[in-house]
Amino acid sequence: MAVINPDRLLADLRRLRTFGAEGAGVVRLALSPIDVESRHWLAGRMSEAGLAASIDGVGTVFGRSRTPGPALIIGSHSDTQPSGGWLDGAMGVIYGLEIARAFADSKDKQELAIDVASWMDEEGTFSSYIGSRAFCGEAVDGVMAGARNRDGLFLGDALKRAGFAGRTLARLEPGRHTAYLEPHIEQGGRLEAAGKRIGVVTSIVGIRDMRLTFTGQRNHAGTTPMAIRRDAGAALLAFATRLNAEFRALAGPETVWTIGRIELDPGSTSVVPGKAEMLLQFRDGEAACVNRLAECLRDLVAEADRAGPVRVQLADFDAPVQPVAMNAGLQAHIAEAAERLIPGGWMAMPSGAGHDAQIIAPHLPSAMLFVPSIGGLSHDFGEDTKEADIVLGCQVAADAAAAILRAARK
Amino acid sequence: MAVINPDRLLADLRRLRTFGAEGAGVVRLALSPIDVESRHWLAGRMSEAGLAASIDGVGTVFGRSRTPGPALIIGSHSDTQPSGGWLDGAMGVIYGLEIARAFADSKDKQELAIDVASWMDEEGTFSSYIGSRAFCGEAVDGVMAGARNRDGLFLGDALKRAGFAGRTLARLEPGRHTAYLEPHIEQGGRLEAAGKRIGVVTSIVGIRDMRLTFTGQRNHAGTTPMAIRRDAGAALLAFATRLNAEFRALAGPETVWTIGRIELDPGSTSVVPGKAEMLLQFRDGEAACVNRLAECLRDLVAEADRAGPVRVQLADFDAPVQPVAMNAGLQAHIAEAAERLIPGGWMAMPSGAGHDAQIIAPHLPSAMLFVPSIGGLSHDFGEDTKEADIVLGCQVAADAAAAILRAARK
Repeated sequence: MAVINPDRLLADLRRLRTFGAEGAGVVRLALSPIDVESRHWLAGRMSEAGLAASIDGVGTVFGRSRTPGPALIIGSHSDTQPSGGWLDGAMGVIYGLEIARAFADSKDKQELAIDVASWMDEEGTFSSYIGSRAFCGEAVDGVMAGARNRDGLFLGDALKRAGFAGRTLARLEPGRHTAYLEPHIEQGGRLEAAGKRIGVVTSIVGIRDMRLTFTGQRNHAGTTPMAIRRDAGAALLAFATRLNAEFRALAGPETVWTIGRIELDPGSTSVVPGKAEMLLQFRDGEAACVNRLAECLRDLVAEADRAGPVRVQLADFDAPVQPVAMNAGLQAHIAEAAERLIPGGWMAMPSGAGHDAQIIAPHLPSAMLFVPSIGGLSHDFGEDTKEADIVLGCQVAADAAAAILRAARK
Repeated sequence: MAVINPDRLLADLRRLRTFGAEGAGVVRLALSPIDVESRHWLAGRMSEAGLAASIDGVGTVFGRSRTPGPALIIGSHSDTQPSGGWLDGAMGVIYGLEIARAFADSKDKQELAIDVASWMDEEGTFSSYIGSRAFCGEAVDGVMAGARNRDGLFLGDALKRAGFAGRTLARLEPGRHTAYLEPHIEQGGRLEAAGKRIGVVTSIVGIRDMRLTFTGQRNHAGTTPMAIRRDAGAALLAFATRLNAEFRALAGPETVWTIGRIELDPGSTSVVPGKAEMLLQFRDGEAACVNRLAECLRDLVAEADRAGPVRVQLADFDAPVQPVAMNAGLQAHIAEAAERLIPGGWMAMPSGAGHDAQIIAPHLPSAMLFVPSIGGLSHDFGEDTKEADIVLGCQVAADAAAAILRAARK
């Protein structure tokens, strides 16, 4: 039995938090100077844990076990949102480090190989998931040349500045790597609401991001009678109400949809809007459900456009993300480990957020484990998880990891 | 019979257009260098017309007739919106100039006194209606010290720079001034839709500008189930639909209302909006109707706020503007003049836009006359009016002016 060391785990999490700490939160954008500094620290900790640690050509920190395979990769990302929480991503990386150490310290698990990863730029400062994409063999030269951050800095130039450009890429080793396990905070309030402490992730949701554009006629808001207006804003409002009703009828129990941005042009109190735009996002773990909603949306847009007097157009705002199922066998190992430690205290659930696991899953059996987020907060300085839940999550992950690797060796 | 001179009228309108011309439109913001230049030109044209012309301490150009009273003031404003039309305001000023000249040239109207005004800053570059307010005796020192344009320039400093600061203010002369007539483009499409060429304005609408604020909880759009969201944007959308239905039921035939701006915070496709804001404006010529709508709005806000889960708050976005009735006797003179020239070709209508006439009306009997705007366009470079309508409007105004002054002399 490899018991993880809670003090060592928490100490490393707290140390990583100091890189970019702002109040209770963290600002550690991918490849910012403080992020680069934290990667060197992380690689150092991996080396101290006995791993062959490196930072690769896209900035991913990878700690390869010196033990022969089969190997389980445990990891997540250590970059943050512009106003990030201290555990989002970071926790899964330090879990991997701690589990590698705990196995090395343990008499009966020294032979189990744990590789540890902190994938570059999960949060999309330049381009989401670039680290895990490169690891899985996707071509990333185009992204390095073309992706920029908000300051206009190219990813390739940021990698040069950091000294990582041109380095060998960490790569999936098909004969050696048997699975990928990504522990993460839930980033929602479902575990808390259900009184559970561990979430076993069944799938990562599919996402559609759409832009709807309404084109009418800009006019004076005082002198244009209601009857002859072609008010793009009013058309958007009526459409949104209709959409919400139709989506409510079609949605599955886990479906979420959000109108996150509305812009009326010119945005003046005295002008009838001539143009209006809204961004709509919807997510579900089932591809059939996502497709049903997409079809409904297309029909509503066509119908509203035909009806007039305002033109309605629909376009992708971002590339569609397909739902990705987590590996059933791995889920079972996590569930068994959780059930042993907290009988009845865990639940199966989809991940509403995107994760590197969705990139890796088509290439390698993958699984995720969630711990509760206090108040469901994430992407916010206030994001936090109870210490006892952080420690429990790591032990569940360690026990599941041992079971996964033992099964792989049979 | 004083027949106005169409060529002279159109030539002066076209000359004034050259000050700040941009394509078919005009950019001549109050007290900008080009506006100051145009004021000197205008004062010169007034002097050539035999008027005692001056530019006063707030920049209003005033041409006082040398003929004894009673005097009719004819005018409007020559400043423009940031992307203004060539006739908005300018037309009424040049009508006044042309009518003063036509009367001076006429054998039987030389004794009729026409004063001509171009009021400063009707469009609110610094502070709306500052010229007509000063003329009516409102204290404007505070406004001169405190009002700024978009560049942060104080009105007082702009007046100093123009060389107008400290000059005597043009003032209403109660014994002499008998009425105010403001000819203007309609700025809407009602005359065109009705096939009429002259509008006799019955009232200038009252305006309420309100800001509604919705406060919920910002959350991750992927991980926050619909049932536990406090989505400020969704609350705003539902509210707007309810509001539109209630307003439709309560509105009078001339009521207009506009949601001109919506902002969702943080405005991201992946974040449930925690805050949302909308600007609502409504206008009607009847105070009772405006008050009925304001009361309905207050009730809806209180009800939505009570119902939750999102807080709803209501505040004035701008000071309320009360509806102002135009003088009935003056309306009759305009209607008679129009009926003589184009039998059945005019109509009575409210002004949906604000004008200096609403500032002057409480102090002096006031009236307005509209000519059609092509396609209803205004506050736009594309604003225009048919030449024949420009000329007809001036002749109707001239005939009405003669009738008004003859009645005043009786």
